[in-house]
This record gives sequence, structure tokens and C-alpha cells, in this order.
Amino acid sequence: MHGKAVVVGVGESEYYKRGGAPETEFQLACKAIRRAVEDAGLDLSEVDGLTTYMDQRNSPLRLAEALGLKELRWSMTPLAGGGNNSAAALMCADAAVSAGYARYVVAFRALAQGQFHRLGSGQGGGGDGARGMAWGRPYGLMTPAQECAMHTKRWMHDHGVSQDALGSIALACYANAQRNPRAVRYGRPLTREDYHASRWIVEPFHLFDCCQENDGAAALVVTTPERARDLRSTPVSILAAAQGMGPDIGARSFQGKWFPGTFYENVGKMLWDRAGAKPTDVDAVQMYENFTGPVLMALCEMGFCEPEEVEAFVGDGRLEGPDAALPFNTSGGNLAEAYIHGLEMVSEAVRQVRGDSTCQAPKVELSLAAGGPGYAPGSAVLFGRA
Amino acid sequence: MHGKAVVVGVGESEYYKRGGAPETEFQLACKAIRRAVEDAGLDLSEVDGLTTYMDQRNSPLRLAEALGLKELRWSMTPLAGGGNNSAAALMCADAAVSAGYARYVVAFRALAQGQFHRLGSGQGGGGDGARGMAWGRPYGLMTPAQECAMHTKRWMHDHGVSQDALGSIALACYANAQRNPRAVRYGRPLTREDYHASRWIVEPFHLFDCCQENDGAAALVVTTPERARDLRSTPVSILAAAQGMGPDIGARSFQGKWFPGTFYENVGKMLWDRAGAKPTDVDAVQMYENFTGPVLMALCEMGFCEPEEVEAFVGDGRLEGPDAALPFNTSGGNLAEAYIHGLEMVSEAVRQVRGDSTCQAPKVELSLAAGGPGYAPGSAVLFGRA
Repeated sequence: MHGKAVVVGVGESEYYKRGGAPETEFQLACKAIRRAVEDAGLDLSEVDGLTTYMDQRNSPLRLAEALGLKELRWSMTPLAGGGNNSAAALMCADAAVSAGYARYVVAFRALAQGQFHRLGSGQGGGGDGARGMAWGRPYGLMTPAQECAMHTKRWMHDHGVSQDALGSIALACYANAQRNPRAVRYGRPLTREDYHASRWIVEPFHLFDCCQENDGAAALVVTTPERARDLRSTPVSILAAAQGMGPDIGARSFQGKWFPGTFYENVGKMLWDRAGAKPTDVDAVQMYENFTGPVLMALCEMGFCEPEEVEAFVGDGRLEGPDAALPFNTSGGNLAEAYIHGLEMVSEAVRQVRGDSTCQAPKVELSLAAGGPGYAPGSAVLFGRA
Repeated sequence: MHGKAVVVGVGESEYYKRGGAPETEFQLACKAIRRAVEDAGLDLSEVDGLTTYMDQRNSPLRLAEALGLKELRWSMTPLAGGGNNSAAALMCADAAVSAGYARYVVAFRALAQGQFHRLGSGQGGGGDGARGMAWGRPYGLMTPAQECAMHTKRWMHDHGVSQDALGSIALACYANAQRNPRAVRYGRPLTREDYHASRWIVEPFHLFDCCQENDGAAALVVTTPERARDLRSTPVSILAAAQGMGPDIGARSFQGKWFPGTFYENVGKMLWDRAGAKPTDVDAVQMYENFTGPVLMALCEMGFCEPEEVEAFVGDGRLEGPDAALPFNTSGGNLAEAYIHGLEMVSEAVRQVRGDSTCQAPKVELSLAAGGPGYAPGSAVLFGRA
């Protein structure tokens, strides 16, 4: 038993390089929500729920007021964490409409790093992430890139994974972004030589292993299958969603089987179990990349392949283009489309089912979006035809 | 259609006067959760969901780790606001188990004002409340008490309500707290003379019109009716819950019908509609009181009486004791039991259905808990026999 809701609209602002947006972050949020609601063929006044994650700036109350919502019957957010909650926001919206607490819930994320602090700077923010990182700072781990690099380096050592495997993720994203005019890196192709020649941010992460820093917003509209029948858009079913942590939680995870790793084993198990599906059934994958390393880990932890196989699994262009062995981050992902904290990748997973991606895989029945790794609960969502 | 979950356990730490707790706020949270889970007859390792509100200090991740949870499948929280979300936390837990995302969700709130900043001081905190209050500060409205006093004074003027009506709320709470050994004001009865003689905090609020400042924590366990059958405790059904804002939202509300007021009209409408009930069907009411004034407003907005009738409705001891015309804040409420941001009053509403309140009303079929007023969405929950 789990929620049975559908996505009826996706929308986004234009995506900008950090500092490039002519609008405020709040205006970007409004624009993405308006466009998603318009895409659904819905009137804004009918939206009665808002959910987001790690967005303390664009409150549902101020948005409801600015957008002219009539009522706000559901405003909840995943607790703690960051991009790891991008799919959890959909799960929250699904629960709201499945349990009958709201009719049309918009999941949104606005993030203008040019207008506030830079997430990757190791400053500002707060909450669990900052508290967790406080333990590493005396040892020189000041930023997420540094922390993630340590895990990735050890994981590569343990499983005999080379730098080329990381590069394959970056190359797939850049290749796919060349088909996507929304992508900030559209028109900026990347070669393997460029990749290896680019400067180190922190080993093993080259410049192109790290997500972009952008200004933008994304939004999705969730409702029941019954209500979707009255809308002009093509509904996409939320077949399953999962938010999870464990079997090892918090500091215990550092002694567990999946350290170093992203702790997506349980998220994967729940997801496949709830959907009655397995990784080989999936036709397109969108996987959050703050950095390339955790993508490799999460692919393994979710059951796509073993760590010792991952280099071959992602290599030889097997993730590139619509006819890839596994169509992957087809919008260009966080590396090459934009970093809107991963919600824009959830929208891309919906597009793959609707058939309107700019890098459209053939006959997509099952489309996966997975949130980011971290030491807070991660999340994933599996979409299919309604 | 709405969620159909049950409460199977309630628990709390000891309640202390601000600064009196020998434990940290985090330890208080753990104690309340442990006791609620024990009350349910459940093993802690089976809890797989956590929800709270306005609690950025006691994160579900750290709690899951400290309490030894095996998995965390649901961790969500109402967005924005404060005590107005006390009932919304139950709605969030209800949606989680109703939609099948988690099995046993604990709603908790820990609040040790002696260990952090004082909510009523007008300093610290942040978020929507602080932003809203920023508009009033240039005019000398520095604290919630001052802001709320302005609304209350105008409302009293508009509807011919006297100081005695406020006093009746305080007297009911203190009378009922004398039966409740958990209450911080147990053994400290209050007379109408004491009330009127007490110092002004800000007119029309005497000392006894204002909630206490305490250290403590409260928790409730929510699951499905099916799973409740295997537990030893008496399940209490969540008949309906509502979180709401409108018909006027944000600054627009200041020009609307319910200004000055608490904006509980829509919350009430949703609640009665979802439960198929009306105010006269309710056998016991727990209503959040940061200050007494908003209680009178919320009673009217939720349909218990008209503003012009409220003085008679709450007067003459009609809210005092188990055999009151309307058993009200039977634990002593925020004024006389403790101020754990209202979640402890949700527990009391559950107790009224179970029959184990220290001020037990006869034959309780419908038991209401309503969250606090504010300019963020409010919430309410209606419990009944499972």
C-alpha cells in the first residue's frame, strides 16, 4: 500500500549561471510554479498545497499570497538534508493528495546562489549538514567537495575504479546537454581530453566533476488520477517513492557496510519493493550529482551493478544520448543543465515518460529520479505511464 | 476522502518551569518519544517515521541515531509557523501511514526555553514569524504578546467583550490544572481576584493571560488501524485533521473579514466537513493559548458561538472541570499545565477519548485539539473512538 498520485505539470524558470538571473529568487520561484500550473492546464487559484525542501527563503505563505492562491491546505517539507530530498518532496505531495488532504500540490525548489550564499563555499547554511561537517573542519574538510572527495577516493581505491569512470558521468551529462536549449552548458561540448585537462577542485574531482552553481527554480504539480482526467496535460504516475536512511543511521553509518557510500541501499530496496520492479526494468535514470563520485556509488547501492562493474557500466558512451544502453541524466543533469538542487531532474524524469524530453529515450515505461547522497535521509521516485 | 490513522501512544517528559530541566532539550525529546512508544506497547526499533514542527534543534536524523531506530522512512514537517502547526504534525503523520509511506510515525515537539532563546522575547528565532513581525517593530511591537494584544483589544472593542471573558479562559485552565499532577501550576490555584490583580504584561493581557515558558517534550505515535490491533494500547482514531490558511492569505488577511482574528474559519470548515460533524457534537476541546484573546477568537471562528455570545459561552465556570458545559483545556493547557508549543494539548485530546485524563469528561465521542493562531497556516485535529 502506498500513495497513488500523478504529476500533471512541470515548469521551470530560465536557468542562469550563478549571479546571472535578472529576477529575485522569489520571482524565479513564482515563475516556475506559474509555468508548471499552466503546463497542467490548471488555474493557479485551484492549487491548495505547497511543498519544497531546504528552502527557508521562499515560504509557502508568501508564495500563496503572491500567487493569489485561494486556500493553502497542505504545506509540509522534508526535515533536514538538502538535495537528497528532491524526490522526497514528490513523496510528500503524493501523500497529501493520496490521503485526501489537498487537491493540487505543487512541489518547488528555487535556488539563486548568486543572491545568497554559495552552498559549496562551506559557509552559511546551517542545520544538520553544517553540524555534521563541523566534525570534519578541524581536519581541513571545509566544503562539501572536500568531504565528498575523501569518500570517493577511498571508494575508488576499494573497488578499483579509475578516474575515467568519473569522467564518463561528466561526459554523458555534457553530451546530453547539447540537445537541451534550457541547459546552461548548451553549446559547450566537453571532450574526454578537456575533462582530464581541467583543473582539480579537490582530487579526484576535476572542475567538470562538480555541479554548477546556478540561479533558477523548478516546480511540479501533483494530483490524483481522478482529477487528472479533467486536465489537458498527460498525467505521469508516481509508481513508487521512498525516503530513507539505514540500515545504519548517522555516525553509525561510518562503521557500516556502505561507508564510504551514499546510503541508497534501503532507498533502492523500498523503491523496487513498492513498485514491484528492478533496476533492469528502468528505461531512463536521472541521478543527482553534486559530484560525479556519489553517482557511481548510488548506481551500485541501488542495484544497477556491482562496484567492480561500474566502470564498464558507465563507460564507452553507454550513458550518452537517447539511444544509450541506459539513458542517463538526459537533460544534462546538475553538471550541465543546471543545479536547482535536483528538482529539475525530477521534472526531466517526468518528461521521459511524457515523451517530451530533448533527449527522449524510446518507449519509456519506467523513469527513475534519485536525490542526492548525504548523511540525512535520501530519496528516490519512480514514474510510469498513468 | 482523507487519511484514516490512529494514535496508539502518548508520552511526555516531566514539565518544568523555564530553566528547570535537569536534562538537555535533546534528552527531553528522547524521553518523550520513548515514553510514547512504550505507552503504545511498541518496540522503538519499529518506529520508522518522525515528524515535528518548528524544531530545528532536535533533528530526526540525530534522534533516529540516538534512539536506535532501524530505518527512517518518513521525516517531514509542516512548513513555516509555530504552535499553529501542533495539529498539523498529526495530519502529516496521518498522511504518511495512510499513504503507506511509513508504519509507525512519531510526532514530537521538544522545547526548552531555558536552554535556548525565549520565544516571547522578540529576539532570536527567524523565519516567517520574524519577517512578519519586522513590519511592526518600527511601531513598537517587539514581542508576540504586544502584537497579539493589539488584535485582541480591537476585537474586544468591536464585539463588546470584557476583560472578564479573558479571565474565564485563565480560570478554567488553572482550575483544571489542579487535578493534573503533570501541570507546572498544579497546587497553585487562581481566583478571579488574583487574575484581575496580577500585573499587566501588555493590556489587555494580565500575567495570567500569557502562556508559561517551560522546558519539556511531548510525543504521540500514529499508525494504521490494522497495525493497532496488534498493540496493547487503546487506539484513538484521527477522524479528521486540517491545516489551512484563507480565504485571505498573508497581508491580504489584514483587510479581510477575520481581521483582527486567528483565521481559523477555513480550518474549522474543513474539519467539520471532513468529519461530518459540527461544534455542538464535540465533547472536549483543547485549544492552544499563547494568550487568552486568540482562544476566544478561534472559538468563534470555528463556529462554537458568535463573538457577541462568547462572554456568556466561556463565563460562569462553563469551561471548568470534567462536568463543564464544554470541558476545555482539561490538562490545564498552555497557561497552567505547560507550554510545549501545543503538542501536549494534542496528547490531552487523545487522553479524553481513551478516558484517562486527570479531568476526564464523561462519554467523550469527539475530542478536538486546535493549534495556535497566527499568520501562517493554522491546524486542528478531531479524535474519536477507533
